[in-house]
Amino acid sequence: MTISYSGNFCRLLVRWKGSIWKACWLELTYFLALYYIMRLIYNFVLPFFDPDEALRYRRTFEQLSLMFDAYVKEIPLTFLLGFYISTIVTRWWTQFENVAWPDDLLSLLCVLMPGTDKKSRLRRHTIARYLNLTSALAWRDVSSKLRRRFPTIQHLVSSGLMTEEEHKLYESFETESVRWFVPLHWVQKILVDEINDSKPLPSLVSQFTQDLKMYRLCFRKLYCYDWVCVPLVYTQVAALATYGYFAFCLMGRQFLDPAKKYKHFEVDFVVPIFTIVQFLFFVGWFKVGQDLMRPFGTDDDDIELNYIFDRNMQSSFAIVNAVEMQSPSLSEDNFWA
Amino acid sequence: MTISYSGNFCRLLVRWKGSIWKACWLELTYFLALYYIMRLIYNFVLPFFDPDEALRYRRTFEQLSLMFDAYVKEIPLTFLLGFYISTIVTRWWTQFENVAWPDDLLSLLCVLMPGTDKKSRLRRHTIARYLNLTSALAWRDVSSKLRRRFPTIQHLVSSGLMTEEEHKLYESFETESVRWFVPLHWVQKILVDEINDSKPLPSLVSQFTQDLKMYRLCFRKLYCYDWVCVPLVYTQVAALATYGYFAFCLMGRQFLDPAKKYKHFEVDFVVPIFTIVQFLFFVGWFKVGQDLMRPFGTDDDDIELNYIFDRNMQSSFAIVNAVEMQSPSLSEDNFWA
Amino acid sequence: MTISYSGNFCRLLVRWKGSIWKACWLELTYFLALYYIMRLIYNFVLPFFDPDEALRYRRTFEQLSLMFDAYVKEIPLTFLLGFYISTIVTRWWTQFENVAWPDDLLSLLCVLMPGTDKKSRLRRHTIARYLNLTSALAWRDVSSKLRRRFPTIQHLVSSGLMTEEEHKLYESFETESVRWFVPLHWVQKILVDEINDSKPLPSLVSQFTQDLKMYRLCFRKLYCYDWVCVPLVYTQVAALATYGYFAFCLMGRQFLDPAKKYKHFEVDFVVPIFTIVQFLFFVGWFKVGQDLMRPFGTDDDDIELNYIFDRNMQSSFAIVNAVEMQSPSLSEDNFWA
Amino acid sequence: MTISYSGNFCRLLVRWKGSIWKACWLELTYFLALYYIMRLIYNFVLPFFDPDEALRYRRTFEQLSLMFDAYVKEIPLTFLLGFYISTIVTRWWTQFENVAWPDDLLSLLCVLMPGTDKKSRLRRHTIARYLNLTSALAWRDVSSKLRRRFPTIQHLVSSGLMTEEEHKLYESFETESVRWFVPLHWVQKILVDEINDSKPLPSLVSQFTQDLKMYRLCFRKLYCYDWVCVPLVYTQVAALATYGYFAFCLMGRQFLDPAKKYKHFEVDFVVPIFTIVQFLFFVGWFKVGQDLMRPFGTDDDDIELNYIFDRNMQSSFAIVNAVEMQSPSLSEDNFWA
Amino acid sequence: MTISYSGNFCRLLVRWKGSIWKACWLELTYFLALYYIMRLIYNFVLPFFDPDEALRYRRTFEQLSLMFDAYVKEIPLTFLLGFYISTIVTRWWTQFENVAWPDDLLSLLCVLMPGTDKKSRLRRHTIARYLNLTSALAWRDVSSKLRRRFPTIQHLVSSGLMTEEEHKLYESFETESVRWFVPLHWVQKILVDEINDSKPLPSLVSQFTQDLKMYRLCFRKLYCYDWVCVPLVYTQVAALATYGYFAFCLMGRQFLDPAKKYKHFEVDFVVPIFTIVQFLFFVGWFKVGQDLMRPFGTDDDDIELNYIFDRNMQSSFAIVNAVEMQSPSLSEDNFWA
Repeated sequence: MTISYSGNFCRLLVRWKGSIWKACWLELTYFLALYYIMRLIYNFVLPFFDPDEALRYRRTFEQLSLMFDAYVKEIPLTFLLGFYISTIVTRWWTQFENVAWPDDLLSLLCVLMPGTDKKSRLRRHTIARYLNLTSALAWRDVSSKLRRRFPTIQHLVSSGLMTEEEHKLYESFETESVRWFVPLHWVQKILVDEINDSKPLPSLVSQFTQDLKMYRLCFRKLYCYDWVCVPLVYTQVAALATYGYFAFCLMGRQFLDPAKKYKHFEVDFVVPIFTIVQFLFFVGWFKVGQDLMRPFGTDDDDIELNYIFDRNMQSSFAIVNAVEMQSPSLSEDNFWA
Repeated sequence: MTISYSGNFCRLLVRWKGSIWKACWLELTYFLALYYIMRLIYNFVLPFFDPDEALRYRRTFEQLSLMFDAYVKEIPLTFLLGFYISTIVTRWWTQFENVAWPDDLLSLLCVLMPGTDKKSRLRRHTIARYLNLTSALAWRDVSSKLRRRFPTIQHLVSSGLMTEEEHKLYESFETESVRWFVPLHWVQKILVDEINDSKPLPSLVSQFTQDLKMYRLCFRKLYCYDWVCVPLVYTQVAALATYGYFAFCLMGRQFLDPAKKYKHFEVDFVVPIFTIVQFLFFVGWFKVGQDLMRPFGTDDDDIELNYIFDRNMQSSFAIVNAVEMQSPSLSEDNFWA
Repeated sequence: MTISYSGNFCRLLVRWKGSIWKACWLELTYFLALYYIMRLIYNFVLPFFDPDEALRYRRTFEQLSLMFDAYVKEIPLTFLLGFYISTIVTRWWTQFENVAWPDDLLSLLCVLMPGTDKKSRLRRHTIARYLNLTSALAWRDVSSKLRRRFPTIQHLVSSGLMTEEEHKLYESFETESVRWFVPLHWVQKILVDEINDSKPLPSLVSQFTQDLKMYRLCFRKLYCYDWVCVPLVYTQVAALATYGYFAFCLMGRQFLDPAKKYKHFEVDFVVPIFTIVQFLFFVGWFKVGQDLMRPFGTDDDDIELNYIFDRNMQSSFAIVNAVEMQSPSLSEDNFWA
Repeated sequence: MTISYSGNFCRLLVRWKGSIWKACWLELTYFLALYYIMRLIYNFVLPFFDPDEALRYRRTFEQLSLMFDAYVKEIPLTFLLGFYISTIVTRWWTQFENVAWPDDLLSLLCVLMPGTDKKSRLRRHTIARYLNLTSALAWRDVSSKLRRRFPTIQHLVSSGLMTEEEHKLYESFETESVRWFVPLHWVQKILVDEINDSKPLPSLVSQFTQDLKMYRLCFRKLYCYDWVCVPLVYTQVAALATYGYFAFCLMGRQFLDPAKKYKHFEVDFVVPIFTIVQFLFFVGWFKVGQDLMRPFGTDDDDIELNYIFDRNMQSSFAIVNAVEMQSPSLSEDNFWA
Repeated sequence: MTISYSGNFCRLLVRWKGSIWKACWLELTYFLALYYIMRLIYNFVLPFFDPDEALRYRRTFEQLSLMFDAYVKEIPLTFLLGFYISTIVTRWWTQFENVAWPDDLLSLLCVLMPGTDKKSRLRRHTIARYLNLTSALAWRDVSSKLRRRFPTIQHLVSSGLMTEEEHKLYESFETESVRWFVPLHWVQKILVDEINDSKPLPSLVSQFTQDLKMYRLCFRKLYCYDWVCVPLVYTQVAALATYGYFAFCLMGRQFLDPAKKYKHFEVDFVVPIFTIVQFLFFVGWFKVGQDLMRPFGTDDDDIELNYIFDRNMQSSFAIVNAVEMQSPSLSEDNFWA
């Protein structure tokens, strides 16, 4: 489920679900473990082997540390992540915008087939079901949550979304590749029958087919986004820069012996507080990208297709049934002059 | 209400409403309070416990201060905020663009149903009311100001936007989720009646249903923006960087004893003027983001849905009534050759 | 008038109208005046009070100057302005794109109402006038230049754009808010009459109403851009950073006494040439933003709505009159095989 | 084939296909070879000619090295690459979005020509073939993979996509420039025949021609992107900056003799680990751009037009054949109330 | 002609046409000439007047040089150019996308007027000619190359694009401003005649007028882009920063006497290799912007409207003639099941 939030700075920071803390705690633990191992080596292991510094082990460690510290400053992590995350965030939002809602198609259907006889009702009802069936079929391949809910087509049949007859027809559709668009063809067949039976307004018919195309397009776009990721090299560049940065920090941010009087190392803090803060926001930022790259997964911040699917089912049938509802009578209201 | 402004630099800076001063004064006060507490500790508390600096308390403080100052320079706040705020500003403007105006639909209606008999007038009038009713129902869930104006559906009834009969039908609509689109279905029913009665141009009918879809879409998009925020982690990263920066500044920007002759600390300014300026523009910039993330709230700079709603109501009825107005007679004007 | 330009670097720099020199000269003069006052204080006033530097006045000045110089380097003006100006430039161009041109609507009209009798001619002519009347009414509220040209509605009447009869009907339109769209309703009435009289192709009718909607939309968008600016805080952040930068420069860029041998202060330049160059491009850049924020004002670089309005008037009538013009006879031309 | 990936940091980094390692290993090898040659010169060749440093050869080398190191820090590679790669990534995705899918056109065709007699079936079938023939003809000029598959038009004939008769007609089309759009004209001819024969709904006809235009547009856009690249100068600027950076690194990142005690050169690392990491991410990032600039080539990460073509062929015929399939009977399903 | 290119780094860099070398060689020559004049002054002129450095001329020069070097580092050229060039590149591509192709309109025409009698053929042929005539008329004002090809309207007549009769009618069109859209009105007249004669499908008629509008729009947009440039101040800011940078480099990058032992000036390189590289990429980058700002000029990298015009002419007539071509007979192909 996506995380809704608002409020001031403090309330924002103490959240756990979908938060930076949850995203980074494991990696931060690893990082700190390694950091303190290095610290132990510097403070206890090296002096043990080299008590009077005759072998210059600690010296070398210190000089390496200073070199790494200088290196670290030259890694331009912010821009790299800035450009990378911008790209990902744009993709993520476009994917969300391509989640299909059947409401518009079904509302139009109520004008196109306004009949209240049983055949019309059945047609509208079946079209509503087919639209949702399509989304179930298509989203299964994109979202791990929906895949878990309907592991096989048979699960769709047992949930009532698909009849046995439809299942057989679906399986007989002659293509190796994806078949999720088959129910939309059945929708078209109902439309052709309706054209022959009731002669609806031609302009509404073409509007309906156009909207049907947009509906189909939404699913195909999700497939495309799922299929063609941000190029692997780009992600690797970002990962390498982020994790490389902190690998260099392991050495470069050690507190050196204050007695040696290296510049900016006059005090031993024990806890590398600044590095931790940096770790949180750089790794946190990079994690934003990793999470958003697959927006229909099982992360806290992922878009909840399961919920959208249930909501669509419910409102789809409600919309098509609304045709039979009594509509309010026209009356002179308060604003009638 | 959004803040309109123009004029030169000075007039710009002395504004209060919606200004950086109003946005930051509280946080700046906290910051300065903490800053001067630290200063007191450095200048009076530490010397009290350690009069002749034998315990090196002040020394340590000074060295910590120099370290933090060095750290602060490495936090790339500008880019982070630059990228973050760009994303937010884009979202904010898109949300504003999705505020629905009924004018276009109602203007089209005047061509579609140009009749001047009472039934036609009533139909146009009721459609105008339904369009505004929809926006009242939908914006209640998005804007805290509109929610305050219409805390319950009953308030809509008593304001005359909804009749009692409509209220009952509305409540009987069978769905658990949002129901704001119900009045648009009533609009469609009136349209179907009109098609049966007067046979309007089919191309205009489909244009009307298409515009009705766009109208519905505007509300759904606002819902989507309201539902799926910028990922929490991203906001936390920005908050952590901004506030972390100034937390480090509390130590790192203290004026150290000039007698110690640290570089760049030859003069004690008392007022950390540069840090205050930085605070104003970094925290101010971050606040831009926080305000714009919820553009329909109660901040000074938020979009005034209440005003838009009133304006829409008024011009909606004016537009549909204009059909009955006399239109100017065709005449040979000055430009007639 | 917008500034057209081309050519090489030198010709570009020596322009005055709409140039960086014109934009910045006043502020640069102020800056330099203050700068030289500071210089006088340092070189003459302080030594006067403190001839042998016993009071260390000059010392303190020098140390402050060094501190400010260090501060100035930390203000990340470029990014801030980069992001800010990007946002403004995008808005500016969108506003320009929403300047409405009646040509498309009127060209379509020539196909929709191709009659050459007087009534048809009058209808086309009047629609052309109404479209321009709408732009005059709407742009008055957005552009200070057009407002100056037509300070009141009565000026529109006396210019012949509006007849007295239309003026009275316009004033009787029942709304408190803007009324510029009223002539578009009259256009619709003429359209309805034409539909009843001549039965034009329905698909062309709906295309015309759709284009009419786009035409109306252009004006509404300009209103929206005029109404909702870039948030004030954002502008203040940019202004504060830009002017704060140069306020710090007043101290930080003083040439200190070369005899004191401060690093990088071995020579006294008298003219702070580098700071002047920086001033020109930072303040110039910020001015780009200020000018473009109100693209229909009276700045050199503003879009010339007056000119566009005149051009539209002229070509509008030319287009509708062209229907009566003889069209070239079909003939076998050079390319006829 | 584009590279799909997911998973955590480690699994991401150990991939080979489409990875940063594969993209950079050759250039990294060259770089390291040159680097160690320089090292040999410094450590063995120079001392050989100048054993007691009397000629100051090593001194000069060291001073050059320090100068280059200082230079390297001033090359703002990250921004340059950031802006450059952003532009390329946007272009790449737009190109992918302009890969044409015949599904929408053919689905519409099933409503437009729903006949099940042989002539209708043949017409639908032929249109499906023509659409794919067009993509084969057009993509041949854009994608080196498809060009390899169909080196000549004759290959298209032998694959059955084009009959001999069509080939002759195709060749007789009188134009020197590209001719890939010819089959779309044949589609239009079939459409005209169908209009004359069966009087389909006019609104569906115009929707079909509109979609046909969009289909044609997709190919033309790919041509345009293929024809007009990012300006050469821009690419050269990016290449020069990237490779210039590492050319300077060859000298500037040599480990100088620790005995000389240059700052940050106290330890001789032998392996320039930091420079290698930098090389990987800068050159890797630049390679992202080079690969994506020609998205239909033979790189690992290129879009697999061959696969898309096969998939389109298969689903095209499946869709048009689906008209004859039995459609499921309307029945009261589980959700029927 | 735009420059197509591909291939690896080396082949990319050795190109001349449209390359960074061609763009910058002249300015680089000037820069180096000035640079070496400064060098001569420093090394020969100053010592000549001041042989024993008693007058401190060289000293002052050296200190100035160090100051300028420090200044140069503070000019944030990369971001400024990054943001500026991004804006220009976006404009450039949009302009290219608004180059109008008549293919779509003419393909639609083949469905709209499928007649094969002489009158229909002549109408189609003439419409094709008018569309190209429009582009010739409009592009003349935008592109210097097309202007050179058709310096006057009479040249269009003699090339056969316009008949004498059309020329006279064209000149009689009553407007002072641009008249390029006149042939599109003649197209509309032919359309109106066709409507009266043959009653084509109304939906196709409105699609044709809509596409005609898009065609007209393309030219108007090019006019707008040609008329309203990027604000002059913005370009001046970028120019000033770029050239100011290298003006400061003239002093700041001089190799000072190694004997003086200034830091980083231990070796005299004679050739300022690093500055040359910087010059190439900064000035080259800026030149990208200058070239793309006028994309239809005579630069190497400009879009070749002449070529597009010839191609359009040829394919226009080919498309309309194709109606009379025999179309392939429907046959059961290899894929027929």
